Amino acid sequence: MNQGDHTPTAEYTLWLGRPGLLARTLAAIMPVDPIAVDAATDRAAQLAIPAGSLGRVLALSVRLAGIQRSLTPAFPRKAVVVMAGDHGVVRRGVSAFPAEVTTQMVANFARGRAAINALAGAAGARVVVTDVGVAADLAEVIGLRPVASLAEALASGAVLHRKVRLGTDDLTSGPAMTREQATAAIEAGIDVVEGLVAEGLDLVATGDMGIGNTTPSSALACVFTGRVPSEVTGRGTGIDDPALERKRHVVEEALALNCPDPSDPLGALAAVGGLEIAGIAGIILGAAAAGIPVLVDGFISTAGALVACALAPAAREYLIAAHRSLEPGHRVMLEYLGVEPLLDLDLRLGEGTGAALAMPLVDGAAALIGTMATFAEAGVAESTAAGAGGAAGAGGAAGVTA
Amino acid sequence: MNQGDHTPTAEYTLWLGRPGLLARTLAAIMPVDPIAVDAATDRAAQLAIPAGSLGRVLALSVRLAGIQRSLTPAFPRKAVVVMAGDHGVVRRGVSAFPAEVTTQMVANFARGRAAINALAGAAGARVVVTDVGVAADLAEVIGLRPVASLAEALASGAVLHRKVRLGTDDLTSGPAMTREQATAAIEAGIDVVEGLVAEGLDLVATGDMGIGNTTPSSALACVFTGRVPSEVTGRGTGIDDPALERKRHVVEEALALNCPDPSDPLGALAAVGGLEIAGIAGIILGAAAAGIPVLVDGFISTAGALVACALAPAAREYLIAAHRSLEPGHRVMLEYLGVEPLLDLDLRLGEGTGAALAMPLVDGAAALIGTMATFAEAGVAESTAAGAGGAAGAGGAAGVTA
Repeated sequence: MNQGDHTPTAEYTLWLGRPGLLARTLAAIMPVDPIAVDAATDRAAQLAIPAGSLGRVLALSVRLAGIQRSLTPAFPRKAVVVMAGDHGVVRRGVSAFPAEVTTQMVANFARGRAAINALAGAAGARVVVTDVGVAADLAEVIGLRPVASLAEALASGAVLHRKVRLGTDDLTSGPAMTREQATAAIEAGIDVVEGLVAEGLDLVATGDMGIGNTTPSSALACVFTGRVPSEVTGRGTGIDDPALERKRHVVEEALALNCPDPSDPLGALAAVGGLEIAGIAGIILGAAAAGIPVLVDGFISTAGALVACALAPAAREYLIAAHRSLEPGHRVMLEYLGVEPLLDLDLRLGEGTGAALAMPLVDGAAALIGTMATFAEAGVAESTAAGAGGAAGAGGAAGVTA
Repeated sequence: MNQGDHTPTAEYTLWLGRPGLLARTLAAIMPVDPIAVDAATDRAAQLAIPAGSLGRVLALSVRLAGIQRSLTPAFPRKAVVVMAGDHGVVRRGVSAFPAEVTTQMVANFARGRAAINALAGAAGARVVVTDVGVAADLAEVIGLRPVASLAEALASGAVLHRKVRLGTDDLTSGPAMTREQATAAIEAGIDVVEGLVAEGLDLVATGDMGIGNTTPSSALACVFTGRVPSEVTGRGTGIDDPALERKRHVVEEALALNCPDPSDPLGALAAVGGLEIAGIAGIILGAAAAGIPVLVDGFISTAGALVACALAPAAREYLIAAHRSLEPGHRVMLEYLGVEPLLDLDLRLGEGTGAALAMPLVDGAAALIGTMATFAEAGVAESTAAGAGGAAGAGGAAGVTA
């Protein structure tokens, strides 16, 4: 059965997007204010520490100050948006788990018992689980009734209904979805971020759930980075060697059949992407348009970032790579985007777990520039030329009270 | 002037240690309860995620559960203990900063305006700045009156007075300090941890301040790891090539003169160590004896860990390496201890900054095992053999509702 032909129950209607939202959002994305960045860079250079000794954390502090246009940046209101969708290509045997696990894990998220709930809770972040393309009527299958209102989802912990279609088509049989569906799924992400911003949002993180979604992510990695499938296709949730070989062929077939064009990101996304990947691209675009930093999780989320940055290159300035996944294609994507991830902890789960783990690093980095005294303010002596002058400086340097 | 000859003012007396405290602490350090570790390992293996997909974070979760003997471990009460001391060897021109910066930075800590204040604040941790060997009367020089009572230091933010002596002697002229002074400085660290435990403590982090302290840390690295000075001596706060060359020779001289013996850790510490390094060793030993995990910061703190683990090998089980410093000897130390750090962010500041940044990762890791459902609890299907069975499984895997 072609999942796209599935007729929804009367319980809900499919999400068709919001007219013009993607175009308006792309037009609203501006580079980070260079004056704010310069001011932060200047202050950071005067802080009472040896030059460079806070490494990438102070560099992040400067970026955060620039994005928030403040020398005392702060990000107390946080959210992780988990986009869930299914993949027709799962019938090709590309995943170690059956497709129904997508639905089962969405139920686990809604009960607050998944890894992302634990990590978001520890980080003080809200979790918004969004059904952008699960191949099941959640109310029917697991007794979960997704809600159309973000406010209601936030209040009750219910799944947010932004379902564009019931899973993608098998991308080795044709395009995964139509351009209109890809646009609607991106707009689902933008819509959620706009709703969160209206409620109050300082930092957002991306997350994904979708059995089979490393396959379209690998395909998108090939499209945008120009690498071949063998370089960017990995074991996902843990497939064995024959399944990995099959998965690589599937990615090759998908690319050969659909001929996705990197200069047409929306077309490429529709052809070989996924609904949750589109939703994640929308989160990133929505955050960039709102001037909010977005922590991008692992391989799937970074596939969404590839699409987002192809649609709006300035979106990259708002993007913080949370971690480096074990999935081999992730490193390739991160290098292509020119971003260095904060964490490298052998994660390969998705859900937004790496992004949630990195959230407190954003808080720490932000606190640096806002808290620390400069050499002048602290009355701390600056570095001498090289090494206190060797023998010549011996007397003076020996004792503070000398 | 030999700093060790400095006569303290009437304002305070030097810290002489607590009779028998080190010996009692060493005797109290027990391996982590293997039954608790087994229980945590069992539960972790059943959690509803692909095997291994939470990488090192789930491994940390299991360790934390074992250390706290709980399947719902939690670490809300946190402290960073910053040990400050000076070094006679600074007269040899081994640092890019003058020695008085130790005192100036202690003042900056006390005012809450240093990097460690920012990062500990973001992590929800208290900061205890402890003068274990600053070569100045802080009250006299910067108007800061250290207090003898930990409770008072916590309440007022004052520097805690545990000064054993006014800086070490130059370790290229003889031992840095006596065995009795090294013992007293270790006991200062144990004493602070004991006080914090009495107030309520779940997680402690080490920090250091001491201009010149990468030199004794490099010497201790040589003593315990068996490497030569050129392999473990780096640029510290940023010395140039001639100063680096001088610093390597200084380490060589110190080792040749003092002949420190790794089988006599206390003697080695007294000969080529530092007062704040001893204090850090005490923090680690005190935490291990109390059954509390201890986040070890960078190069200086890990020198303290080398001493602590040489004195009590089981202490290593309570130690969490926070980050990998840019200082080349740090990697050597971490490999010697067999620990993999959580962060790698090009830090080389000290103060406990890397440890404070890593604190929220401990919270996140702890939340995993305590929050997550198992496959059975969540009703999530487990992995199929390899890849959903390829063509044979096509129909069943295609759609959730099929």
